[in-house]
Amino acid sequence: MKDLSFKIEEVPQEWLALGGRALTSTIVAAEVDPECHPLGPNNKMVFAPGMLSGTPAANSGRNSLGGKSPLTGGIKESNVGGTSAQIFAKLGVKALIIDGLPEDDSTFYHLHVTKEKVVINKVPELVGKNNFEVIDTMMAKYNNKVAVMSIGRAGEMKMLISNISVKDPEGKIRSHGRGGMGAVMGSKKIKVITVDAENYKEATIIDKEKFTKANKVFAKSLIDHPVSGQALSAFGTNVLVNILNEAGGLPSKNFRLGNSENAEAISGETMAENIKARNGKTTHGCHAGCVIQCSQVYNDNKSEYLTSGFEYETIWAFGANAGIKDLDIIAKIDHVMDDIGVDSIETGVTFALAVDAGIIDYGDGNAVYKILTEDVANGTPLGRVIGSGTGNLGKLYGLVRVPVVKNQGIPAYDPRAVKGQGVTYATTPMGADHTAGYAVATNILKVGGFVDPLKKDGQIELSRNLQIASTFIDSTGMCVFVAFATLDNPDSMPALVEMINARFGSNVTVDEMMQLGAKILKMEREFNKNAGFTNAHDRLPEFMKYEELPPHNVIWDFTNEEIDSFWNF
Amino acid sequence: MKDLSFKIEEVPQEWLALGGRALTSTIVAAEVDPECHPLGPNNKMVFAPGMLSGTPAANSGRNSLGGKSPLTGGIKESNVGGTSAQIFAKLGVKALIIDGLPEDDSTFYHLHVTKEKVVINKVPELVGKNNFEVIDTMMAKYNNKVAVMSIGRAGEMKMLISNISVKDPEGKIRSHGRGGMGAVMGSKKIKVITVDAENYKEATIIDKEKFTKANKVFAKSLIDHPVSGQALSAFGTNVLVNILNEAGGLPSKNFRLGNSENAEAISGETMAENIKARNGKTTHGCHAGCVIQCSQVYNDNKSEYLTSGFEYETIWAFGANAGIKDLDIIAKIDHVMDDIGVDSIETGVTFALAVDAGIIDYGDGNAVYKILTEDVANGTPLGRVIGSGTGNLGKLYGLVRVPVVKNQGIPAYDPRAVKGQGVTYATTPMGADHTAGYAVATNILKVGGFVDPLKKDGQIELSRNLQIASTFIDSTGMCVFVAFATLDNPDSMPALVEMINARFGSNVTVDEMMQLGAKILKMEREFNKNAGFTNAHDRLPEFMKYEELPPHNVIWDFTNEEIDSFWNF
Repeated sequence: MKDLSFKIEEVPQEWLALGGRALTSTIVAAEVDPECHPLGPNNKMVFAPGMLSGTPAANSGRNSLGGKSPLTGGIKESNVGGTSAQIFAKLGVKALIIDGLPEDDSTFYHLHVTKEKVVINKVPELVGKNNFEVIDTMMAKYNNKVAVMSIGRAGEMKMLISNISVKDPEGKIRSHGRGGMGAVMGSKKIKVITVDAENYKEATIIDKEKFTKANKVFAKSLIDHPVSGQALSAFGTNVLVNILNEAGGLPSKNFRLGNSENAEAISGETMAENIKARNGKTTHGCHAGCVIQCSQVYNDNKSEYLTSGFEYETIWAFGANAGIKDLDIIAKIDHVMDDIGVDSIETGVTFALAVDAGIIDYGDGNAVYKILTEDVANGTPLGRVIGSGTGNLGKLYGLVRVPVVKNQGIPAYDPRAVKGQGVTYATTPMGADHTAGYAVATNILKVGGFVDPLKKDGQIELSRNLQIASTFIDSTGMCVFVAFATLDNPDSMPALVEMINARFGSNVTVDEMMQLGAKILKMEREFNKNAGFTNAHDRLPEFMKYEELPPHNVIWDFTNEEIDSFWNF
Repeated sequence: MKDLSFKIEEVPQEWLALGGRALTSTIVAAEVDPECHPLGPNNKMVFAPGMLSGTPAANSGRNSLGGKSPLTGGIKESNVGGTSAQIFAKLGVKALIIDGLPEDDSTFYHLHVTKEKVVINKVPELVGKNNFEVIDTMMAKYNNKVAVMSIGRAGEMKMLISNISVKDPEGKIRSHGRGGMGAVMGSKKIKVITVDAENYKEATIIDKEKFTKANKVFAKSLIDHPVSGQALSAFGTNVLVNILNEAGGLPSKNFRLGNSENAEAISGETMAENIKARNGKTTHGCHAGCVIQCSQVYNDNKSEYLTSGFEYETIWAFGANAGIKDLDIIAKIDHVMDDIGVDSIETGVTFALAVDAGIIDYGDGNAVYKILTEDVANGTPLGRVIGSGTGNLGKLYGLVRVPVVKNQGIPAYDPRAVKGQGVTYATTPMGADHTAGYAVATNILKVGGFVDPLKKDGQIELSRNLQIASTFIDSTGMCVFVAFATLDNPDSMPALVEMINARFGSNVTVDEMMQLGAKILKMEREFNKNAGFTNAHDRLPEFMKYEELPPHNVIWDFTNEEIDSFWNF
């Protein structure tokens, strides 16, 4: 961005077999000074489609974004559905790397990526616009299939809760949500990136027959599994509200309780009833080729569109943790968060803490909506306070009960009552992140066996195995939900690896791919170490060590030594 | 504070010879979990008078406060003049240690310390009051000599810029300024601590004759030195404005320039003229027994009192760095900062950054005054933003040019142009702190020899020697300005150590006291290491590595390896 130039480079031999998280983390580790300011000239943004993105592989449409996070101060990989992964892959682009800050920073820029070049133009007319308008403008300018990655007003203002919006197949929004990467895009003065692959049909596949055969086995494993094949499509990710509430691990009132009095009102079952009664869509894929279809279209009681991609994490954060009982208000909040471009998890956890700070009343969804549209969108002091995320809000208001790890807000599973998930939150180099090693699967859903969520036994090993596997899965372009099948169906993971071999003409084993996952995970931790992280950052908030969580009245009882043993591999 | 109880304990043998910083850091390292939340139940506040406090030793009236800093997240020692050190010492109190949080936190408490006990009472009538009123109330309740340590509204709200105010001999205010320790006192719900030593005259001295003789030599060394004996008493610490401006190391416009167009208007010379013309006092001691008298009383142009203890750092921060040209407005700001209880360095550096954030205009002193009195004092969102300090303001507004080390604002000497001072900022466990190893002495004032401020040669060793000596001096109860004499006059340091021997009947050498300084410094670093600090935290802000500072057009050019070699001792 410094001089608004671009360069097309051959991919170094040693990076050829990588994709997604494996590639973004490798490039960030190789090229970004871990001590750099995340919003300064020396940070980079690295977009990379997964190894299988752009192929017909089921659920392979996720794109990874890497860089140094301004929220955590550590390495970040955040992957997203939508159309960008497939379009990059069809162009044969392994990664888009953006560095520097523009010398002329008087306005924002638009990057248009095609097979041959990157065109960089000033777009003063888009400054201050939000994501839906930007996406519509880009579709009108190019075509309906163009990939669009944009930031809203929050990203322009470099807020730490800002995300990067990615157009889905219907022109709606999926997000590179966590870690404040919208602020990095804002620091580089990039309002929108478009990628056009109109004349390119599919990513290359060396052995198509082998690929198709493996893909059938793999897709079947997803469809056959009760979680990915039934529960997620029937109720969306929001099926988890009732499940976690029953397990006593649904964090409520800013992590004071493990049950919510709002559970039924905000549950996946209630949501599905609303959707059916209001002519919405209960199933919907965030990217082409998804066979799970956990997304949906949610309308209001006049059957007018409210939002889509209405996820458990969002509904939990505002519904249970901040106490907003009305799904429709949460849906309105969800839509405006997409539009101004903020991470719905970080934002929701921040608003729940804002109740403790005395900024809003518990359950007041209208106040949340007003603050988002009037304060966050306009960058008032209050908007900046909320826009700084959970950890910083806690610092500003002198709060102690602040649910963050590495300054990133803790998602929708209380670590005291879902201890495997707690190990993941504590140890992942990403900061508190539920997808990094989704131990909820084995702790609560009894996928991949069962490890008692309330006991410490086996949790370290569970989280470690899941984090290693997830690091690999995040490199394939696959959605995290393929893990249910790979954990329970012995044919699933070999089929996934077989597709990689078929695509690249390689001959890797499942074990070798797990070794790749472990290597990348350790590389990410090494980056963080050089950025100033130690074992002391692999900790849950101190209050969880002495404050019991009802109804099981459990505390976080791992010793530091136990947690630190996570890295013994 | 948990159950509002107190306990008088014998001092363990191994702590008997310690005082001030050596004692507070030793107790904090022994008793505070480095991973604890600074505002939670497991942090402690440790007040300890210096080894010589309460004796007639010249300039020995400083009291140390230790704990885990909520601003830096590391160990903190902040020492202060006023009357508290001498009164603790006269009572024979080696340290006052405060732990826990009160179970009943519905209001604030008053701790009254006497020889026999600590009386703890609720003081709802003092909640929301500021420091001058609290001090006046306590003097009326007890006597004019009672020691008072209080927090203003900023401390009640646990703001990270809040400090702890200490009554000086005239009922004015000195401060445990840096590190946000007022927020720790606020977290423990303590509004005010009083210490009464009415019937106790002097700390015990084993060999009075030897003591008196050594004190004469020591006091003479202070008075004979041109800096401590003449410059500081004639112009106050503010003598440094013109000196640093000439040296090109006076940070201006948020560390963009090394000279200020306001230098003459805000200089010590101008200040002294105003004081004389307006019937103020050019000399004044912050504690009884001070022979340097660098403080003063500053009146407005109607000869009405404006402020006292009007220091270079404050005047620089608002005058040069934030561009306020009018000393009288800065004096008004200084007074209100004392009253609401905020650190004048952190607050000033934050306001200079607030210009970059677009919150105030450069040089607008009235806007600063308004924000302090209306927003900070009342905890509005804007008040919370400013109240969170420089580093957090930078995070909220996505700023890159943020002058902090370990999240603490950098004081009044640009490290690029006063490189020895930069080494101190980078390496001291305290966060950016000018008193931790005042290399300005040798870089600029040519005290203790001369090390060229613009070159790297010799700076690491200079800062190391100064930090070790300062750690010892901070343990004696002596003010940092005794260092000028100890650096230049070979009789000075031996006389200081001789007073310690005379007081305690010990037989320690100067070398042994330097070893003590080194040991405490390493102990502090070890605490920080266990709290999550690494070499990566011993860094100046990245922008100083690539942005040249006029007029010398110098950058911060130390390598990481050079800085890390500081700890090779």
